[in-house]
Amino acid sequence: MGIDKKYLKTTNKVNKLYIIKIGGNVIDNSENLHNFLQDFSSLDGHKILVHGGGKVATQLSATLGIEAKLVDGRRITDIETLRVVTMVYGGLINKNIVAQLQRFGTNAIGLTGADGNFIRTKKRPVKTIDYGFVGDIDENSINPENIQRLLEAGFTPAFCAITHDGEGQLLNTNADTIASALAVSLSKLYETTLIYCFEKKGVLHDINDEESVIRDIDPKRYEELKKQEIIHSGMLPKLDNAFTAIACGVKSVIIGRSDDLGNIKGQQPFGTRLSNNI
Amino acid sequence: MGIDKKYLKTTNKVNKLYIIKIGGNVIDNSENLHNFLQDFSSLDGHKILVHGGGKVATQLSATLGIEAKLVDGRRITDIETLRVVTMVYGGLINKNIVAQLQRFGTNAIGLTGADGNFIRTKKRPVKTIDYGFVGDIDENSINPENIQRLLEAGFTPAFCAITHDGEGQLLNTNADTIASALAVSLSKLYETTLIYCFEKKGVLHDINDEESVIRDIDPKRYEELKKQEIIHSGMLPKLDNAFTAIACGVKSVIIGRSDDLGNIKGQQPFGTRLSNNI
Repeated sequence: MGIDKKYLKTTNKVNKLYIIKIGGNVIDNSENLHNFLQDFSSLDGHKILVHGGGKVATQLSATLGIEAKLVDGRRITDIETLRVVTMVYGGLINKNIVAQLQRFGTNAIGLTGADGNFIRTKKRPVKTIDYGFVGDIDENSINPENIQRLLEAGFTPAFCAITHDGEGQLLNTNADTIASALAVSLSKLYETTLIYCFEKKGVLHDINDEESVIRDIDPKRYEELKKQEIIHSGMLPKLDNAFTAIACGVKSVIIGRSDDLGNIKGQQPFGTRLSNNI
Repeated sequence: MGIDKKYLKTTNKVNKLYIIKIGGNVIDNSENLHNFLQDFSSLDGHKILVHGGGKVATQLSATLGIEAKLVDGRRITDIETLRVVTMVYGGLINKNIVAQLQRFGTNAIGLTGADGNFIRTKKRPVKTIDYGFVGDIDENSINPENIQRLLEAGFTPAFCAITHDGEGQLLNTNADTIASALAVSLSKLYETTLIYCFEKKGVLHDINDEESVIRDIDPKRYEELKKQEIIHSGMLPKLDNAFTAIACGVKSVIIGRSDDLGNIKGQQPFGTRLSNNI
């Protein structure tokens, strides 16, 4: 009995945390979203959901006559677009996700980075392009102890991709970057696994064969795969960012399809796991 | 020194809580809202903000071609209207209020009743009228310990008037009722003052004289004022509800103008205070 208790105490010391990011391909399909949220709810322990936008914001903008503004191919967040994403990401999508998670027994709280001052960013400075109301994350953006208080109080944060500047201004921020920054920051307090759900089953050996998932990649293998040109150009920034997060303390980054998430619990392979140790 | 410490401990035991409700007359005027949020932030101790809607939801509905549906003069929340209020109340208004509160140093978290399962309601049953997606509060809707965990973790909840049924469905709920139900529920744990901000300085002795505020009303005085027909018909439901909340444990209910809220801190009179003891 005494040994059991001690063991429990030791394992509790290193708390595990999952941070899972989903994008439009999950959000826009109500069946996919439903299944994902059910699998997410069945994961044990601390977890954080980060979601991007979806078609709804684009549709609402079109209905309201707000044109998508692009400068040199880059999307601009003007004040009307910020209003739309605040309504759609922060309201419609986020709160419906929260209501679904509650249904599945997860005590979720839907958040922007303004809530709890969890993610404070800086409005991107105007150089050649004025990106409008876009917030960039830096090393001081996230206070991990602040988020820990919410986790330890028993709540599961669900973040949309909106932040604030601390001066009353909401800002649009990339959801992938939010997930990565949360993972790096919280890896000081938790053994953190960062999961990106995307449209493929993982990093593929053969891009035409969905079943050719490379299960594990460490930095050495990554260099080899790049040399062999097995990892194609579009995946490079994703994987570079993932290994940067790992170098900053994140235990592993998994890239896979949302409908395979349930595999984690069954100890079955899920996506491609990037880490320092295969 | 010993006496001081003991005194502090005793006063800490009964934690005070303010629950303050604002409506469209504050939300629709950016200067009023700014001033109110600044005054709200300067209040010491635990506090909860509850806000209703404003003109924005009506305007957005009109732009989207969603007609306001009324049956026997009662507003119906159809699925399109629910989408609009989730976007506007839960997203646009709520998150901008949170960003402003953060600016003024209040660590606010913007919530619907779905978040944290804080307010679980029942969809109003269809009798003669189908009200649509409207949620009614009952005695099991609010778990005060759940909200206490958030307060004690150092966060200030800001609720919009959306709740959920626990089965994944968001529901529209009256903001006055939410404020009152929160106050009754949390009065089990805190010495709770409930404040309704409305367009007048308080309950007026003479409806044509804004300065004729009746400062204090207890149940006995309330009966007298009703007999003398000093309290007019429109105020009766407000005051009846307030005295019901007081009978259920709320220490006092204050009705007044948002721009006078700062008076509380200066120990100056603010609005009309309803309580069991003048």
